[in-house]
Formats: sequence, C-alpha cells, structure tokens
Amino acid sequence: MKIRVINPNTTCAMTETIGAAAARVAGPGTQIVATQPAGGPVSIESHFDEAVAAVGVAEEVLAGEREQTDAYVIACFGDPGLWSARELTRAPVIGIAEAAFHMAAMVATRFSVVTTLGRTGIIAEHLLQQYGFAHLCRKVRAAEIPVLDLEHDPDAALRKIIEESLRAKHEDGIGAIVLGCGGMADLTDTISDAVGLPVVEGVSAAVKLAESLVHLGLKTSKHGDLDFPRPKAFAGQFRHFSA
Amino acid sequence: MKIRVINPNTTCAMTETIGAAAARVAGPGTQIVATQPAGGPVSIESHFDEAVAAVGVAEEVLAGEREQTDAYVIACFGDPGLWSARELTRAPVIGIAEAAFHMAAMVATRFSVVTTLGRTGIIAEHLLQQYGFAHLCRKVRAAEIPVLDLEHDPDAALRKIIEESLRAKHEDGIGAIVLGCGGMADLTDTISDAVGLPVVEGVSAAVKLAESLVHLGLKTSKHGDLDFPRPKAFAGQFRHFSA
Amino acid sequence: MKIRVINPNTTCAMTETIGAAAARVAGPGTQIVATQPAGGPVSIESHFDEAVAAVGVAEEVLAGEREQTDAYVIACFGDPGLWSARELTRAPVIGIAEAAFHMAAMVATRFSVVTTLGRTGIIAEHLLQQYGFAHLCRKVRAAEIPVLDLEHDPDAALRKIIEESLRAKHEDGIGAIVLGCGGMADLTDTISDAVGLPVVEGVSAAVKLAESLVHLGLKTSKHGDLDFPRPKAFAGQFRHFSA
Amino acid sequence: MKIRVINPNTTCAMTETIGAAAARVAGPGTQIVATQPAGGPVSIESHFDEAVAAVGVAEEVLAGEREQTDAYVIACFGDPGLWSARELTRAPVIGIAEAAFHMAAMVATRFSVVTTLGRTGIIAEHLLQQYGFAHLCRKVRAAEIPVLDLEHDPDAALRKIIEESLRAKHEDGIGAIVLGCGGMADLTDTISDAVGLPVVEGVSAAVKLAESLVHLGLKTSKHGDLDFPRPKAFAGQFRHFSA
Amino acid sequence: MKIRVINPNTTCAMTETIGAAAARVAGPGTQIVATQPAGGPVSIESHFDEAVAAVGVAEEVLAGEREQTDAYVIACFGDPGLWSARELTRAPVIGIAEAAFHMAAMVATRFSVVTTLGRTGIIAEHLLQQYGFAHLCRKVRAAEIPVLDLEHDPDAALRKIIEESLRAKHEDGIGAIVLGCGGMADLTDTISDAVGLPVVEGVSAAVKLAESLVHLGLKTSKHGDLDFPRPKAFAGQFRHFSA
Amino acid sequence: MKIRVINPNTTCAMTETIGAAAARVAGPGTQIVATQPAGGPVSIESHFDEAVAAVGVAEEVLAGEREQTDAYVIACFGDPGLWSARELTRAPVIGIAEAAFHMAAMVATRFSVVTTLGRTGIIAEHLLQQYGFAHLCRKVRAAEIPVLDLEHDPDAALRKIIEESLRAKHEDGIGAIVLGCGGMADLTDTISDAVGLPVVEGVSAAVKLAESLVHLGLKTSKHGDLDFPRPKAFAGQFRHFSA
Repeated sequence: MKIRVINPNTTCAMTETIGAAAARVAGPGTQIVATQPAGGPVSIESHFDEAVAAVGVAEEVLAGEREQTDAYVIACFGDPGLWSARELTRAPVIGIAEAAFHMAAMVATRFSVVTTLGRTGIIAEHLLQQYGFAHLCRKVRAAEIPVLDLEHDPDAALRKIIEESLRAKHEDGIGAIVLGCGGMADLTDTISDAVGLPVVEGVSAAVKLAESLVHLGLKTSKHGDLDFPRPKAFAGQFRHFSA
Repeated sequence: MKIRVINPNTTCAMTETIGAAAARVAGPGTQIVATQPAGGPVSIESHFDEAVAAVGVAEEVLAGEREQTDAYVIACFGDPGLWSARELTRAPVIGIAEAAFHMAAMVATRFSVVTTLGRTGIIAEHLLQQYGFAHLCRKVRAAEIPVLDLEHDPDAALRKIIEESLRAKHEDGIGAIVLGCGGMADLTDTISDAVGLPVVEGVSAAVKLAESLVHLGLKTSKHGDLDFPRPKAFAGQFRHFSA
Repeated sequence: MKIRVINPNTTCAMTETIGAAAARVAGPGTQIVATQPAGGPVSIESHFDEAVAAVGVAEEVLAGEREQTDAYVIACFGDPGLWSARELTRAPVIGIAEAAFHMAAMVATRFSVVTTLGRTGIIAEHLLQQYGFAHLCRKVRAAEIPVLDLEHDPDAALRKIIEESLRAKHEDGIGAIVLGCGGMADLTDTISDAVGLPVVEGVSAAVKLAESLVHLGLKTSKHGDLDFPRPKAFAGQFRHFSA
Repeated sequence: MKIRVINPNTTCAMTETIGAAAARVAGPGTQIVATQPAGGPVSIESHFDEAVAAVGVAEEVLAGEREQTDAYVIACFGDPGLWSARELTRAPVIGIAEAAFHMAAMVATRFSVVTTLGRTGIIAEHLLQQYGFAHLCRKVRAAEIPVLDLEHDPDAALRKIIEESLRAKHEDGIGAIVLGCGGMADLTDTISDAVGLPVVEGVSAAVKLAESLVHLGLKTSKHGDLDFPRPKAFAGQFRHFSA
Repeated sequence: MKIRVINPNTTCAMTETIGAAAARVAGPGTQIVATQPAGGPVSIESHFDEAVAAVGVAEEVLAGEREQTDAYVIACFGDPGLWSARELTRAPVIGIAEAAFHMAAMVATRFSVVTTLGRTGIIAEHLLQQYGFAHLCRKVRAAEIPVLDLEHDPDAALRKIIEESLRAKHEDGIGAIVLGCGGMADLTDTISDAVGLPVVEGVSAAVKLAESLVHLGLKTSKHGDLDFPRPKAFAGQFRHFSA
Repeated sequence: MKIRVINPNTTCAMTETIGAAAARVAGPGTQIVATQPAGGPVSIESHFDEAVAAVGVAEEVLAGEREQTDAYVIACFGDPGLWSARELTRAPVIGIAEAAFHMAAMVATRFSVVTTLGRTGIIAEHLLQQYGFAHLCRKVRAAEIPVLDLEHDPDAALRKIIEESLRAKHEDGIGAIVLGCGGMADLTDTISDAVGLPVVEGVSAAVKLAESLVHLGLKTSKHGDLDFPRPKAFAGQFRHFSA
C-alpha cells in the first residue's frame, strides 16, 4: 500500500519531520511517500497561504495518481484543498485536522486544540463547524509560535506548546489535546508525557485512517459531489490542468 | 494486539457473523476475540433491549480487562453502553455506529443510514446528534426487517436492504450508505456492488479504528469525564460490581 | 393517581429523601410510591453506574405496571433508562433532569446547573444537547461533593452547593439555578433563600409534570419509536425479561 | 390559586372556548379567569396581529396584577408578548406554544405541528428555534383554515385538521401532534380519537404547567433579564404605562 | 428615494441623533424622513418597552405608506416589530440590529456586541440566534448605561462604551465591535478611533442596506409568510387598524 | 469609488456579463473594473476548479491593490478565496454567495437556491452552514446546466432555471429565490417576472454591499484573523508572492 503524505508547504525539513512521523506509525505493508509541492509558501499561517497551498496539494495528488497511490494525507492542519483533492482521485484523502478530530472524539468527551498562531485559530474553528465537531472542542488555543520556529527553535516552541497544553488541561475541562500543526508531528510523545493527557497528532492519525480505509476497500465516492471534475480548459499558468 | 469484539446481544450466530467480519479486516498481528454477554436479549431493537445489553457490554469489558485486551468494539449500531465501557478500561472502545459515521464522513460529503426497523431510527438520530454528524446524514431509513431475519431469512433481508439503499441513492443526494446493524456485517460487498456506492459497515470500520488507536498509543482519557468509576457497593444481582 | 418515584440507586436513605420531596409537592389525590431497585449501585456518579441503574429502572417500571401506576419519575439527574422506561408503559415517564430543564426554561431566560461531581457534568451536557436546552444553560458547574455526602455530611454539602450557586449567580449571567442531583431534593428552599434566585429541583418538578400529563390524559405515544419492545427471549440473569 | 388565561384576541366566543378548556383541566383549588384585551384584533394570523395583541397581553397582565393573580397563560400559539409579560409580574407566565412543545417532548420523540394558516407557520418555526425544540418537530403543517372558522364553521375546520393530522401521522415519522391554535382547545379529544396519536393542546398544557410552577413556588426570575421594566414615561395612547 | 427612519421610542432628541446619523451616510438622491411614534416609551430597555414600541413602529410604517416611502429602517437595536412592519408594506424594512450583524459579518470573522444595559443583552442574543449569527458573536457586553444617558450624559456614556469595547478587543478574540443601541449612532467614529477596530453601527448600516435593496429592486416578498395581513376588525384603542 | 469585480474564471464573455450586471446597479460615483485572472479554469463547477480559481482571485486582488481599489467583489457563487482575499487588502471584499444570502434574508423569511449543476450544491451548503444561513434556506436546487451553457445556450438555460425556480416556489414554502451562479447575473429580471418572487442575484447584491461598506468607512478588520499575511518566501510558480 502506498500512501502519499503531502506536506502542503515547501519547507523540506518539515516534509522530513512529517514523513518520519508518518513512517513511524505506518503498518508493515505501507510505503510512505512524503512529498511537497514544487511551488508554494514555506509555511502556512493564513488563508492566503492556504489558498496557494491548495493548488500545490492538487498537483501532488495528480502526481500521485500517476504512481498508483492508494491513499493521500494532506499534512497541514487547515486541511487545505481537501475537497478538491478528493475530486481528483478514487483513493481516500485524509486531512490531518479532520483525522485528529475523529481520533480525539474516540478517546475523550471534550478536547482543546493547541495551534501555532492565534490568527490561524479561525481556520480550525471553521473546520470544527463544517465537520460537526464544534461542540466537542472547548477551546482553540495558540502557543503563538510561527510555524517555522518548530524547525528553527524547537526547544522554545516545545516549551510554549506544553505550557499552553497545561493551561488547557487545567482550565478547559477536557480529556485530550489536539495538536494544531503538522510540524508538531514529532513532539507528540514528549507533550503527552509532560501534560499527562492523550495528545492527538494529525499526521499519525491520518496515516492510520488512510490505511484503514484502504484495508476496508472504502474509496472516495464518485457518485455526486466528489466525482472527478468535468474536463475543461484552464488558461495561463494553470493550462496544464486542461483536459 | 487483542481486540475484543463484543456482540451486545446473545445470539451466537450473530456473534459469529460479526467475528468473521472483524477477522476479515483485522491486521496480521491482531487477534479478534468475538464474544457475547451471558445474559441479555437475543436481538437489540428497542431502547429497552439496549439498556439491558449495556450491562452485558460492561460485563464483557470487565472480562476483557482480565485478559489484557488492547481495544474493544461494541458491535451493535446503537453503541449501547459506550461511555460506560470507556470508563471501565484504559483501552480504546469503539462503537460501530460512531465508527461507521467517522469513516463515511471521509469518503462522502453526505450519507444515509439504512437500518433494520423504523423504530430504531431514533436511536441513530440521537447518536448522530450527540456525535455531531447530524448534518452529514440526509436520512435514516429502515428496511423494516427484524434483526434476526438477517440470520433466518438472509436473502429476503438482503433484497430489502438493497432496495432501500437504492432508494437512498436516487432520492437523498448522497455519496455513501451506512449500514445500520451489526448483523449486516457480512453483506457489505454485496450491497456495495448492487448499489454502486461506498457502503460503510460499522464492525469492520470499528476494528480498523481500534487497531489505529492502539498503534498510535492513544488510550481512553482517564483525566476527567471517563476516569474509572469511583469504587462503591452494588446491591442485589449486581453486587459483583462492588469494589 | 399513583406516581411511582424511582430512585435509581439502592440507598434507602436517598429514596426516603426523594420520596419526601415528592410527597411534599404532590396534589391531594396523588399517591407517591417511592421505590428503588433491588439491585444496583448505592449512588450514581458515572456512566457505568448509570448503565447498571437503567436496568433497575426498567425493573421498577415493570413492577409498577403490575400495580396500575399512572406515571413514573426517574429520580436521578442523568435520566438513566428514560427512553427504555417509556417503551415499557403507556403511562408518562419523566426524568428529573428533563423536568428541571423544562421548568427552568419557563422562569428564566438562562440558567446554570450545579451538580455534585465534575465528572458527571458531561452527562448533563449530553442531555441538554439531546433535549434542546443547551443554549439556555450557561454552565454546568460542580460542587465537587460525592453523592452520598448529601446524606453523610449534609451541612458541608449544602455549604458547597450554595457557594457554587452564588458563583453561578455572579459570573454566569443567569436567572435561575438547576440542582443537578436527586439527592438535593430537600435542599431547594434553603439554597434558594441563600442564593436569591429561583432554584429548580428535578424531583418536585417531575412530580408536577407527571401529574399534569395524567390530568391531561397525555400518555407515552405507542405509535412508532416508543412502542412496547418486541417480545423476545433474554438469556442468563435477564431471562425474566423474556416474553 | 388564580390563573388568568389571556386570550390575546378580542373575540369573546374564543375566550369562552379557551376558558372552558382551561377550566376543564384546572385543579380543584384553581380559579380560571378567562379574559381578553379591550383592544386588539379579532383573530391573530400575522406578525402584525401579534404585535398589536402583545400590548393587549401586557394590559391584561397589569390588570391581573391588581387582582392578586398567581399565574398567567397567554392563549395564542405565537406566544405574543411572552417575555414582556414575564417582566411585568413575579408570577409565572406560560405561552401555549411553549407549553405544548414542553409536553409533547415528554410523550414522544418527535412531533408535528398542525396550525391554521400556512403563513403563520413561520411564527411556530421561530419559536421552535428560540426555545430549542426545532429538532423535535418534523414539520409545521397548516390545515389552511382562518382562525375564526374554528368558531364559524367548526365541522369543516375539524375535518381539515384531522385530515392534516393524519397526513402528519403517516408521512412525518412522528409520535404526537401539537395543535397550533388556541381556538382548537375544545377539539383535542376528537382529534386524538380520530388520529390515534397523543394530541397536545396548548391551553390545557399551559394551565397545568402554570399550576405546577405555582405549587413548586417557582416564580419568574427577577434577577437580570426578566426584572420589572425600569419605570419611565410613555407618550400618547400609551401614557397610562408611565411610572 | 425616500427612506423612513423610525426611532421606535418617543424621545425627540434621539430621533434627531438618529436622523442626523442616517442623513450623514445617505446617498445624494436619498431623502431621510426621521420620525417617531406619537405614543410609546421614551426609551427601550426591556421586552415590555419593545412590545409597546412595536405598535408605534407599525403606525409609522402605515403613515409612511401614505407618503410613498421606498424603504424603512427600525432604529432600535432589538428590531422591535420587524416582521410585523414587513407585512405592512412592499418596501424593504431593515432593523438596525440585523443591519449591523450583516455588515460586521463582512469585515471580520468574529465580533462582540456592546450594548447599554445588561438586561437587554438577551434581546440581542435572541436576535443573533434567530438570524443565524450566534456563532459569529463572541460576547454580548453591556456598558451598563441607561439609554437616555446617551443624551443626558454623553461623555460619561462614551467613556464607558469605549472601556467595554476595549475589554472586548483584548479578551474576546474579535475583529470588530457592533454597537448595540440606536442612540450610539453619532459615536461610531470616536469609538472606532479609540478602540482601533472597525465599529459597526446599525442606523448607518441599515440606511445603506435599505438604499441597496431599493436600487436592486428587491422588495419584501408578498408570497407567503410576509404577505399583507388579512383584513379584519380591531377593537378598542386599536380599532383604527380595522380593515 | 473603484470596485474591482473579479470573475474568478477565465471566460471573457462571462466577465462581460458580470461586469455589465455590476455596472447596471452601481451608483453614479462608482467605477466598476470587471476583470478575470490570467490563469485558471474557464468555468467553476467543482472544488478543484474553485481551488485553482482562488489563486487567480488573490492575483486579482493584488493587482487591484496597485490601482487604489476601494472594494472587491468575488463573482463566483462558491466565494472562492474569500478569506484569503480579505487578508490581502484593507478594502472590503464581498463574495456573491454571501451577498445574495444577506440580501435574501432581508426580504423573505425563507429562500431556496437555484444553482447550475447538482454537484456544486454541496459548496452552497457548506457556505450556508459557515455563514449561518442554513436555517433560512429550504433547499439547494440545481437546474442541471453546465455553467458555460449560460453563455452558449442561454435560452435553454433560462428555461430550465425558471422551471426549477417555479418548483421551488410551489414546493419549498419560500418567499424568495437566490440565483446560484455569477453567470446568471443578466437573467434576474426575466426570472423574477416569470416566477413571481423576489429573485436575489449575487453580483448586483455584492456591488451594493461593497458600495455600502465603503460609504460607511467599514474596512476589513486588520486586527487578528484577517490581518495581512506574514511576509514569507514562496517557491516555484508562486515565487512572485514572496515578500
């Protein structure tokens, strides 16, 4: 089974972090292909970054289709381009935000999200609402660290995430923490040990969900809303999407 | 990894059906222990049946705890005794209704449920509301077959389920069907082929989710709401629960 | 008119407290039959306790049916076994949580719940969501007293409940308090006097609602969802439920 | 105990119908004072009718206050002036729409409303949403009869209401009918017999709820939102409201 | 284009404030007719005040209809009599609360409301729920100033509003402030400068929305719910409404 | 005032249709700049088309910023790239779906959407949910016409839209129709005349809302969620976004 884990930003170090986290939990028969778009932002910290990254995600899914991919993971907590990616393939596509929410809902009655920057909290809130998990999430919290600090100053980042997670534990009436950034994928155990709560991290969660769907033979429905896009012409820089 | 798949009713044939469905999707290192309570209803078709079955589920979790169980599946579509079971163990516990809803949400934008009897539809509706999936479910439909007909008259039952699923496909604007009874666990492929939609069945879905949580090291949170019950005395027929 | 007030736990002293509270508000023609199951937990402080108690509630409803009962009250704030009980009788069945929520909604725009232990708050939250009162409840608060302390150390318990209720009054922007435990049934007036707010207590509320439904000739609907359970075999310790 | 049952419209015959329905269910110690405003519409079939009637309701509550009234019922299904009335008194005030919804929620899992004119359905929908019962109501249906036809051509009106109620029974998946007009208060038994479902009628429901609140000593909260209006000057035709 | 801006209270000074605010933003071809009912409360600070004012609003719409009015604004933050007013005319009718919510939703993801008295917060909460904006509003806050203090002690009122708005900015995670009273219409710029956030004020917002609807040729739908009220007799002080 | 009306697809004829519709309703001092991205799909009929178009929208907003633009309209009914666009400018940005929903909410209590292809209905449903208008929309309907048929076979398209709108009028219990595609911008009057309901079209609605916000001095909040994106490097085909 081949799972393409797409880091929607263009920072190789983060792709490696994500790929390693994915590989760590992958089953014996699973091949993890960790990749990133050729074009796009070095980190995703805004709706604009997300909008650009969504095209890169689509490119990566199309590339994956040429390589017989069994499932896809979109490894940014805003699930950029999720519905679009699902249209481009019969294979299951899992976003790490949804993955984390699904898993958290099975080990606790209520959780809080700890993300990087406060300004991206609204993206998590919109997803919680769209997916139906809003009532399970007590609070979307931010450690107020730029995404790339997870790579550049990991110790300080880790400390802030733990501090915010402990505040969540003591103030929010929760049973679990959801980590709100793909770049935190290697920190799960450390945070969980420090906080004393189940900590749900989306990359690993998504890999297991992707494997599960493949094992179950469940594919993205091509009846109705998520059918392949109607072939059509694209202009300019996107003309390679024409069909 | 040992997963205890609990059929909450006391019909052995259904336990076998469920166990076989679980084994079919289980990973190579997974041992499926399919069981049923010593006491309880032969089928679950009402809130009363569910209430009695929930005690059987608790008994079975406690039995599982004495055998080093890694995860539990509650294989009745009403998820009877789910929260109670989660309190009794650190292991993950998955209900097949929630499992099916989680999986369906990842392969389609909207789904319909096809269950056995119309009168149990309200149980599915309550779960959809509690879990947060109500807006994803277009309709809870019933094939109007008693649960045990799935064992006694499987051909007629299958035909009715397919008919109702086709109605759902053509009338509800959906991308997937969720099967609303553990006893349908062996019919998934046939129904999916006949209907031409992804068909999500809860027993198999729950097994993969349980395996996933175990692989991720995610356990039922013991901080707060789902902590082990406070030890106390129980009277009468339940005095063996005393601690 | 005969109302069976079922204390779902097996602590006689609490049954007496509850029965006295029920009798205090019952109309002149109403006979209160306060009872408790022969088997079950001495107090209800978890989902597991609730699951076991729900069977006791069913037993008590079936007992009541043999005695021409006009209505039932389930006197534990989690409303354990409510839907199951409704299936077993044509008589109205009222849970004390729902009763308190209904009444509170008629005397204030917003209320807070003050319950015993924090861990049971999720049970109240689930009920508020299911019944549709979530938006009326500002906060589910806990005095952090074990249920039986209401019997064993009533003065300390009362003091903590009043303190938490005063916090609710001053911080939550509410007009009324809902008491979140059947064992508080005798404290209503004292708390209301101390807090200066309407205090809604479920046992008394449920008795008046039960009387009201009986006077109106409104019975549990036997059309559809709440019809009598289909007769079937039960195994083991529950074989007496067979029909 | 004195309950003032306010018919918000100015048609005496309807006041009599409503008063008789109220008296029929009132307890032995309850005095029903059925009244109507001196000014206002002869029937309430629009938001405008409701707006005018709300002032009449306020006048009637103020009149009731001068006569030591223990509780008030607003006997129009739109609950016109409910929150305003609650501010004007410490006594409980019950609208017949909310009363019917509360009662229906205790005898069935789902209900439909059968009202007079389709155009007033939106008023019921707004109330269902505000009170939190929207998910319990499958459909708001109209028999398409003007309100006063209930007085002028009662047989035809009754026939249409029964027809619409039967459609609700067969198409909506419900367990109970809520009658959506105070003028139907004398038809409950006939409709229930013809339809074979519990039929909840608001005037009788509200009287029992009002009695219940009085017996429980629960009064409209004067802490916060529903406190007496701040005294102030009123101009023109409303100067008698000045204080 | 003639827009009738109805101040629902009877304080001339406030009508002038509101009229001036409306005129300030009106387009070149727009004539603002600022008016107030002959009868009603001098300020609106309760549901009762609102109920009385709603009749005044209806009178003013009927007066406007005799003068070829193109659109109406109801300039009190509770939108009193909004649905009633819409029935009385084909012209668009805009409430200032809804207008402010609509506009705020377009310039920020989340906002807080700053109103006058805490007791009127529930009115805003009910509107947010009915209109569908509840999830966009973090908090309804009160500066705890009586409405007429906006006229009598404007400096103190302004100071309190700014203080509360700053608390909203720093504590609520918002991007905009909605002013919760028509009497604040002249303070918008000062508050916005002091607080450093977009401040949405309903009178000006409603005038632009009214103009927009007129320019688009969009009128209040007369199909169904908002059709003209059925002509009927009114008694007593309201007999002039008879038709 | 300069409003940039961005047609997110790359079909010039549709840009002209949209620009003409915008110009028709623009105020005397408003300059409409109708534009389209250099790159992207010729029509938008899927999530994938939307994802690509969202980048084009961002490009167009950045282009608009270099020309002193006062407000932006995104003229595709899925509001592609709306939040991203808002981050890139202080000027107001309005999507035509949200614009149509806001306007429809002010002229009717309930509406239905009539869009092009059934598969895009889910996009409208997601927006209705996110914005808070889901309860106001009875049904999202599709005329089942590809977007470009609006240009290529306008008569047939118009006929189908009218037929579907009439079905909505007669079956849905609505007061208004919302047109679900920017390409229908020139058909509003014809459809409204044929259907006999207010028909709300998003391009014209958005232009008036944009003008309104500009006149009110309300700009996209730069405090928090919608602040300018943090400057950062972009790789590959998107490196021109680097800052």
